[in-house]
Amino acid sequence: MADTEPGRLEVLALEGMPEVAPGDDLPALIVAALRSTPGALPPRADDVLVVTQKVVSKAEGAIVDLTTIEPRAEAVAFAERWDRDARQVELVLREAKRVVRMANGVVITETAHGFVCANGGIDASNVGPGTGSIVTLLPADPDASAARIRRQVREATGVDVPVVISDSFGRPWRLGIVDVAIGVSGLLPLDDLRGTPDHDGRVMKATIRAVADELASAAELTLGKLAGRPAALVRGAAFSRAEASIRDVLMPESWDLFR
Amino acid sequence: MADTEPGRLEVLALEGMPEVAPGDDLPALIVAALRSTPGALPPRADDVLVVTQKVVSKAEGAIVDLTTIEPRAEAVAFAERWDRDARQVELVLREAKRVVRMANGVVITETAHGFVCANGGIDASNVGPGTGSIVTLLPADPDASAARIRRQVREATGVDVPVVISDSFGRPWRLGIVDVAIGVSGLLPLDDLRGTPDHDGRVMKATIRAVADELASAAELTLGKLAGRPAALVRGAAFSRAEASIRDVLMPESWDLFR
Repeated sequence: MADTEPGRLEVLALEGMPEVAPGDDLPALIVAALRSTPGALPPRADDVLVVTQKVVSKAEGAIVDLTTIEPRAEAVAFAERWDRDARQVELVLREAKRVVRMANGVVITETAHGFVCANGGIDASNVGPGTGSIVTLLPADPDASAARIRRQVREATGVDVPVVISDSFGRPWRLGIVDVAIGVSGLLPLDDLRGTPDHDGRVMKATIRAVADELASAAELTLGKLAGRPAALVRGAAFSRAEASIRDVLMPESWDLFR
Repeated sequence: MADTEPGRLEVLALEGMPEVAPGDDLPALIVAALRSTPGALPPRADDVLVVTQKVVSKAEGAIVDLTTIEPRAEAVAFAERWDRDARQVELVLREAKRVVRMANGVVITETAHGFVCANGGIDASNVGPGTGSIVTLLPADPDASAARIRRQVREATGVDVPVVISDSFGRPWRLGIVDVAIGVSGLLPLDDLRGTPDHDGRVMKATIRAVADELASAAELTLGKLAGRPAALVRGAAFSRAEASIRDVLMPESWDLFR
């Protein structure tokens, strides 16, 4: 179970983040934003830094100009039928380890990382002015992206702040997107309460809190999608520190009833 | 899009909630807890009250004693194979409108409300001391439960605070549970950004934020599963006020690729 069990949470959207471009030192920009966000510094022991995928991908150059993509016939046919960009469909298929569903205008794939999501996490909006054909891919190794940010924040502030890289995923059966974790450093993405006696002293059987995903969702509530705020500090959540990987969240194939 | 676009969020777990029993006036208990939680009153215009399913079900008497349940042969066989309680499996099947998957020890059903979730939202833990065979069902009409709490909070405080009823759901492809909304009153569960220009002035095509689900997840981070804290006030989130229903979140059958 979590190291802490608090009753009060605060989420501070970082202020003053500039537009991020390929090659930018994102960890340094985040440290500067922490400095310009009232109350953010010094970090506290129960802080987690949540950084959205898009700025990570842009800084790392995980972007593609769709004008360079030649779509296969399958992508062209699907795009024509469902009014989509065939080059983007092509890119989703190229980035996929496995196509889970391709129907109703939706392409759901398993990415190289093991995430199952719509469009392989490839995203066209908010990538910067005058960039109509540029899309972002998921970062190649989001855990490593999180670790780099964590290290530089620690060097600058002297405090080891766990980092979550977040992205917006849809869900089966429910409309709308929620932010979830696609990379972590310094915290357990799952808080395992199995075997812990509950409030009444009975043993809880199947409670594993997806705490990194909930941290991502809490951060999203302060970031929105429009305001150019790509990072937030979540203060006071119940989580456990550890060296861990987002791979811990991926359901093993043998448990997956929706392949 | 949301009426507000803030950069700072606070979540206050309500303090002093007693153990809830069938017939209790839950809205009155919540009003009392608001009064004993420092900083909660007066409510602010950007507050949302999140109340977990279990206390709602208990107060409304949506509980079943498993010793009264006679399992059918299918439930007995499944329970024996997967080391589960046949009476609980039976109850899940009785509450189901449709069985989505029944394999690997997991029963995923569509409930009468239209929610697709494991075990039909039926839950054995934390239902009170000395109640080993008692389980909670989902509230019959969680939107109505939310509306009752909202009305009584408004009468007591003079402020109209939107209410979300939350429950913990698993997800395909990812381990762990996250809290989502199963009932709403006074806010749009989906914040539709489609057609809104993004930060760069391009039109965003498919962004519908599942804001009620993210509010539920943010609240869970302060409630945990062990501490007997069943409600929280989320202050400062971006959401839109409206008369709405959690049914707005349910994916139409024709869009569902995972039936």
